[in-house]
Amino acid sequence: MKLLEERIIREGKVYAGDVLKVDGFLNHQMDPALFRAMGEEWRRLFPGEVTKILTIEASGIGLACVAGEVFGCPVLFAKKSRTRNIAGSVYTAQVESYTHGGVYTILCAKEYLLPTDKVLILDDFLANGNALLGLLSLCQQAGATVVGAGVAIEKAYQSGGERVRAKGVRVESLAKIASMTPDEGVGFC
Amino acid sequence: MKLLEERIIREGKVYAGDVLKVDGFLNHQMDPALFRAMGEEWRRLFPGEVTKILTIEASGIGLACVAGEVFGCPVLFAKKSRTRNIAGSVYTAQVESYTHGGVYTILCAKEYLLPTDKVLILDDFLANGNALLGLLSLCQQAGATVVGAGVAIEKAYQSGGERVRAKGVRVESLAKIASMTPDEGVGFC
Repeated sequence: MKLLEERIIREGKVYAGDVLKVDGFLNHQMDPALFRAMGEEWRRLFPGEVTKILTIEASGIGLACVAGEVFGCPVLFAKKSRTRNIAGSVYTAQVESYTHGGVYTILCAKEYLLPTDKVLILDDFLANGNALLGLLSLCQQAGATVVGAGVAIEKAYQSGGERVRAKGVRVESLAKIASMTPDEGVGFC
Repeated sequence: MKLLEERIIREGKVYAGDVLKVDGFLNHQMDPALFRAMGEEWRRLFPGEVTKILTIEASGIGLACVAGEVFGCPVLFAKKSRTRNIAGSVYTAQVESYTHGGVYTILCAKEYLLPTDKVLILDDFLANGNALLGLLSLCQQAGATVVGAGVAIEKAYQSGGERVRAKGVRVESLAKIASMTPDEGVGFC
């Protein structure tokens, strides 16, 4: 998606340790107009029925909600730890975190993810694929149909895309990074 | 706001320990169409210039992003812990959590909160006011102007509204709860 790629070129910064800083428009400060365009692009790519969008806290929530307006469906975000306000039973999955280190549990209430749901999974980044695989596991536990996964930025040189696609999930990434270095910046596929 | 109050009456559940469960449409599963209506109501209530919306992860992000579309401005969310992806200097504040217990640090990058910003603070709940006061502190550290604070649900029988308004901040809550009990449900102001 040209609009997103141009934004990454213009405002993204690459740091040592495989870090792409896009927190000026994607995952700290967020640009709702960009999210709207991204939502419309995912709608074009996934024109079939979607009854629910599933994402993961925190930085997926904004783009998932704006995309939810475009798709006209509710948005569910998997939480990263059990809080006092979730009553009843939940689906859980374990996710290994690159950004924060360690393993955490994601969960969603069973009552909001149903066997009848046709789910589009959305997230801001796809690198090693652990977050998407965790979300996929929640859907499988619920018996829901996964329509596909929409990702803002895929690090295509990492294994995540392959791991998720190997599960039979259609993944549509709006910007696919072939390589990036602090010196040479970002190159797209 | 009638639409939100009706939704709380219809789908909200009150549990012992002063817990209002609205995670079917507000803070776990989210209804983007409702968020759009809430954003338009805040725009009506705050018709002046707003250059930035500030909220806090995680459950404020969705409504803030949809409201950001209505206001036509970027949305910044304060993060709850330092992650590897935030480089450079940050403003921080301490927030005591009722839901999770304990004290946590919120932070935002200095580069995204400017002395020239006219900030609307948004959040899903106002109870003891700690989260809003933390966000207010970030704005004060930045020298930004706080236009006001928009809240989805205020527990008006708790002290938060008074504490925040005592700082000279205009607070507009779309649903103000006068009382709630598991037996009698929710009563609005």
